Amino acid sequence: MKAAVLYSGGKDSSFTAVMLKRLGLDVELYTANFGVYDSYIPASKSAKSLGFKHNVLKMDTEILKTTCEKILEDGFPNDGIKYIHEKTVETLASNHDIIADGTRRDDRTPKLNINQIKSLEDRLNVQYINLDSFGHKSVKLITGNLFEISKEKSNKDTSSDFEVEIRTMIDEMGGNSLDIFPEHYQTRVIGYKK
Amino acid sequence: MKAAVLYSGGKDSSFTAVMLKRLGLDVELYTANFGVYDSYIPASKSAKSLGFKHNVLKMDTEILKTTCEKILEDGFPNDGIKYIHEKTVETLASNHDIIADGTRRDDRTPKLNINQIKSLEDRLNVQYINLDSFGHKSVKLITGNLFEISKEKSNKDTSSDFEVEIRTMIDEMGGNSLDIFPEHYQTRVIGYKK
Repeated sequence: MKAAVLYSGGKDSSFTAVMLKRLGLDVELYTANFGVYDSYIPASKSAKSLGFKHNVLKMDTEILKTTCEKILEDGFPNDGIKYIHEKTVETLASNHDIIADGTRRDDRTPKLNINQIKSLEDRLNVQYINLDSFGHKSVKLITGNLFEISKEKSNKDTSSDFEVEIRTMIDEMGGNSLDIFPEHYQTRVIGYKK
Repeated sequence: MKAAVLYSGGKDSSFTAVMLKRLGLDVELYTANFGVYDSYIPASKSAKSLGFKHNVLKMDTEILKTTCEKILEDGFPNDGIKYIHEKTVETLASNHDIIADGTRRDDRTPKLNINQIKSLEDRLNVQYINLDSFGHKSVKLITGNLFEISKEKSNKDTSSDFEVEIRTMIDEMGGNSLDIFPEHYQTRVIGYKK
C-alpha cells in the first residue's frame, strides 16, 4: 500500500520514509512548493540518494502569502510555520490513503496534536503517521546510524524547508527575512551510511 | 546499540521489535514474570519464530499482589493493568539504555502519557520508544503485512499478557477471574508472513 511522506530532505522526514519502507509500505516522497522558488531541488537530490520516488506537491501561492503576512505581523515564525504545515498536510491527505511526516515526539511546532490528527483522519479518511514513537535522543541515534548527512550554512539552495519560499516572499514583500530567520546551519541527508 | 522491548508475543510488541531491528538497533525481547505461572512460554515461542533473543524479566511478586488487590477492589482491570505495566516499564528501564513497548497512539490503557515518559527518561536516564507514531488502522495494516498470526480462545497457555498471572493470583485469592476478564479470543504472532 502506498504511503505519501511529506519530505524536506532532512533527517527526520528521511527517517519516516525509511521506517515505513522497511515496514513494507510503498513509499513516495512529496515536497511542497508554492510556486515562488524551486526549493524542492535539494529534497529531490536527497530522495534520489535514498532510492525513493520524489514528487513536487503543488500548493496554492495564497497559502504562502497568508503565512508570510502572519509571520510579519507576529515578528516571529512559529504560528506561520504551524499554519503552512497544517495546510500542506491537509493537501497531501486529500489525495492519499496513508500520509506521513517527520514531526517528532519532542517537537513543538510545526506539529499536529492528537485532536488535529484524529480530526484529519476522520474528515479525510486518511491514515496519518509521524515520529511520535521516538524522543529526540532516539531520533538522533537512529538517524546517525542510518544516514550520511551534509551540514552547510543555510541558504536558498541547500534546503527544501518551508523557510526557503517564506524567506523569498517576505523579501519580495519588503520585509527582511534575516530578522525572522537568523542565519543557521542546515543539515541534509545525502545517502545511507556505508 | 541494544534496545530492550517489553514483549507479550502479540502483534503490537512484535511490531515494535521488528521496527527497531529494521532501523538498526540490536533488539532483545523481555517478558515480565511475577513467579506465579510460567506465562512467558507463548512469548518465547513467538520471539523464536521472529528470530529474536528472548529473556524473562523477573518481577517482584508483591507488584502482582498489589495489582490483583486493586483489580478486586475496583471490580474492573484498567487501573490494575496500568499499575503493573508502569512497574514493569520502570524495572526494564532500570537496567537498559533504550527500552520500548507496543503501546499504540490510540490505546488508552495501559499506556504512559507524555509526562510519564519524560519523567521516566529523565529519572532513569533511558530512552523510551513505543508505537505512538501509528494509529490503529496503520498498526492493523502493517502487522497484517508483516506477521502470521494465530487466533485461539484465551487460556493460560496461549498468552503471555499480564492477564495470565493476574488471573492465576485472583483465583488463588478466592476471586473469580472470569468476572474480571471475560473469555475472549487471543492472537499471537507465529512468524513472518511468507
